[in-house]
Amino acid sequence: TARRLAHIPPTVFSEMSALALRTGAVNLGQGFPDRDGPASVVAAAERALEGGANQYAPGIGVPALRAAIARHQQRHYGLELDPDREVVVTTGCTEAIAAALLGLVDPGDEVVVLEPYYDSYVAMLDVCGARRRPVTLRAPAHATSAPRLDPDELRAAVTDDTKVILLNTPHNPTGTVLTRDELQVVADLAIEHDVVVITDEVYEHLVFDDALSSEGHVPIATLPGMWERTLTLSSVGKSWSFTGWKVGWATGPAALVQAVLAAKQWLTFTSGAPLQPAVAHALDHEPDWPGQLARDLQARRDLLCEGLVGAGLSPRIPEGTYFATTDISHLGWADGREFCLALPERAGVVAIPTQGFYDDAEAGRQLVRWAFCKEPDVIREGVRRLAGAD
Amino acid sequence: TARRLAHIPPTVFSEMSALALRTGAVNLGQGFPDRDGPASVVAAAERALEGGANQYAPGIGVPALRAAIARHQQRHYGLELDPDREVVVTTGCTEAIAAALLGLVDPGDEVVVLEPYYDSYVAMLDVCGARRRPVTLRAPAHATSAPRLDPDELRAAVTDDTKVILLNTPHNPTGTVLTRDELQVVADLAIEHDVVVITDEVYEHLVFDDALSSEGHVPIATLPGMWERTLTLSSVGKSWSFTGWKVGWATGPAALVQAVLAAKQWLTFTSGAPLQPAVAHALDHEPDWPGQLARDLQARRDLLCEGLVGAGLSPRIPEGTYFATTDISHLGWADGREFCLALPERAGVVAIPTQGFYDDAEAGRQLVRWAFCKEPDVIREGVRRLAGAD
Ligand SMILES: CSCCC(=O)C(=O)O
Ligand SMILES: CSCCC(=O)C(=O)O
Repeated sequence: TARRLAHIPPTVFSEMSALALRTGAVNLGQGFPDRDGPASVVAAAERALEGGANQYAPGIGVPALRAAIARHQQRHYGLELDPDREVVVTTGCTEAIAAALLGLVDPGDEVVVLEPYYDSYVAMLDVCGARRRPVTLRAPAHATSAPRLDPDELRAAVTDDTKVILLNTPHNPTGTVLTRDELQVVADLAIEHDVVVITDEVYEHLVFDDALSSEGHVPIATLPGMWERTLTLSSVGKSWSFTGWKVGWATGPAALVQAVLAAKQWLTFTSGAPLQPAVAHALDHEPDWPGQLARDLQARRDLLCEGLVGAGLSPRIPEGTYFATTDISHLGWADGREFCLALPERAGVVAIPTQGFYDDAEAGRQLVRWAFCKEPDVIREGVRRLAGAD
Repeated sequence: TARRLAHIPPTVFSEMSALALRTGAVNLGQGFPDRDGPASVVAAAERALEGGANQYAPGIGVPALRAAIARHQQRHYGLELDPDREVVVTTGCTEAIAAALLGLVDPGDEVVVLEPYYDSYVAMLDVCGARRRPVTLRAPAHATSAPRLDPDELRAAVTDDTKVILLNTPHNPTGTVLTRDELQVVADLAIEHDVVVITDEVYEHLVFDDALSSEGHVPIATLPGMWERTLTLSSVGKSWSFTGWKVGWATGPAALVQAVLAAKQWLTFTSGAPLQPAVAHALDHEPDWPGQLARDLQARRDLLCEGLVGAGLSPRIPEGTYFATTDISHLGWADGREFCLALPERAGVVAIPTQGFYDDAEAGRQLVRWAFCKEPDVIREGVRRLAGAD
């Protein structure tokens, strides 16, 4: 294996889903729902398959989907996009991240990234030869509140050497939704130091109204002066419950979108031709589906969190996403990875250790992430097993 | 745009397909058929969509598809593969190429590549920081024969500094199918200098029986001593006429497959969950379809080549693939790119200039590639327009 990759461990999501399959454990690890999205979207995919959408889609994405993405940005956020120059379709958000970093980050460039970080961010930053400057979301004193961005820590990290700030809000794995005030700090620094912001907003629609101090998810691209320096990434997978389709997108000013395209044309060229028209259908004709999913998820979050409390764990209550995180030292375990590797046998449950998402392995060592994007009965069974574990 | 990509022009296939759309020209450029593959495969995709194959597939690919790929390699080539360790599913062959190079090639490594080369090879070799050593397929004296590999040129290029030989057979754009004797030269050198061979065999089933001096397509992985050092890439797209599905695979010894997975987990993670079971269906239940397509293509190749002759062009007769190449200097043009940019207006036809596929721009300057994977009527209309052009 080439040096750029040899030191990077395999993605923990594959590792833990394989463990779940092997042991038959309840999978509260990798973030995917066990119920599919709208039937009308499946029907649209079938029409596309039969209607001949089976040959190469344009590398930038089929026109109908790019137009639907532009309408989605208009409807939700009031942003006016040119679908021919300010939108590119990708193979899920993962390819958007990979292509954005390969397209924008030179070896030696400094990239500020929220910690804990999604594992592909760090792998691709390493592949690009970036210098990583993590800014840690810190757990507040209140035991059940989501971690927050410390403005002073961020100010200390962003300098004239910073090329990119890599954001993620709603944030995986913490469930933190950055407030407008927090985002304003990011925006001020980005403008002051002429930094590009790449923001992964795949959970944009999955926010919980009871947990938020502010107006819910705010795309940083909507803040004054930010559109022209922000590349926003999202996908159909999480919001419409089709994680396996891997149809995502990047939106932003033409120069940033071109940089994504410059890389992605060599990574996959294009993908999912018969799925792209169906994703356009989801965006245009199932606009309320993600909001309903968010309301369902809020109830399932509560189900999971109550169950975790019952099992002796104290989750921080997520404001968005699919995930809640707990400190397993409460149960007398020091190491989340050891805890998760033992959990299928001990309790018949799989979860995700998040220590790999920290530069400072100590910082995340005792943290474990649990997914609540599963059916209520699955969550109930999972927490029942946890409560009964020795 | 980052330095690793800034000097690489956009893929000529996107450029020329966009030109075809804009001008309404007959598209004999990008290689995709205008008739879809078997209806039973579309039906299998519909069953997968309705049967809940809509969440993340494993990064390595769904088990049913990996098993079907192993059976395909057994049936056609007598190779016995472990589907759990020697097969990985990718987002088309493009991702397999990108991941193989990112996973195996370090900066400064020497990579020998057949010239003319597919444009993504060179882009990814540049991204990897490889030193490229092209070995040119040379046009033989006989005016209509496909170019051939010169064993002496290859021997001069492969040294102990060579890390990888990047092959492509059947070869795009020349239509050359490497003979067993030619492949034996490659194999001897690879073994002598301890080189890994990455071989793109997406056109493996699309070979024409009248043009071949030997036994048709020979996978280099089947030559003695080669399995353990060969990574073979292919896909469903070309052989079963579903180019838009972008489901491909890499097969080889576990260490090489692991290197692909090490990179691809960060590029897309996974893709096409509802398409993967349908591709398994194609491999298992439509095994004769590619052979029938090859027979049809042979007739369409003849239709195109006769038409090109009628229009004053002298194609070299391809032994495989979707493509025939002509020297446009016969028509008094010096530059294939200028010829192709003018062609939609002059004749209402789009073709692909192949000069970008040569290190030495002069070598390919007068060469233009024409696709015959289109319906006979489309080919007839294309050559009729060419013959009538001023
Ligand atoms: C791409 S695999 C992981 C899915 C996911 O987003 C998560 O579990 O965090
Ligand atoms: C991936 S775009 C090009 C399709 C193709 O293989 C070709 O036209 O050469």
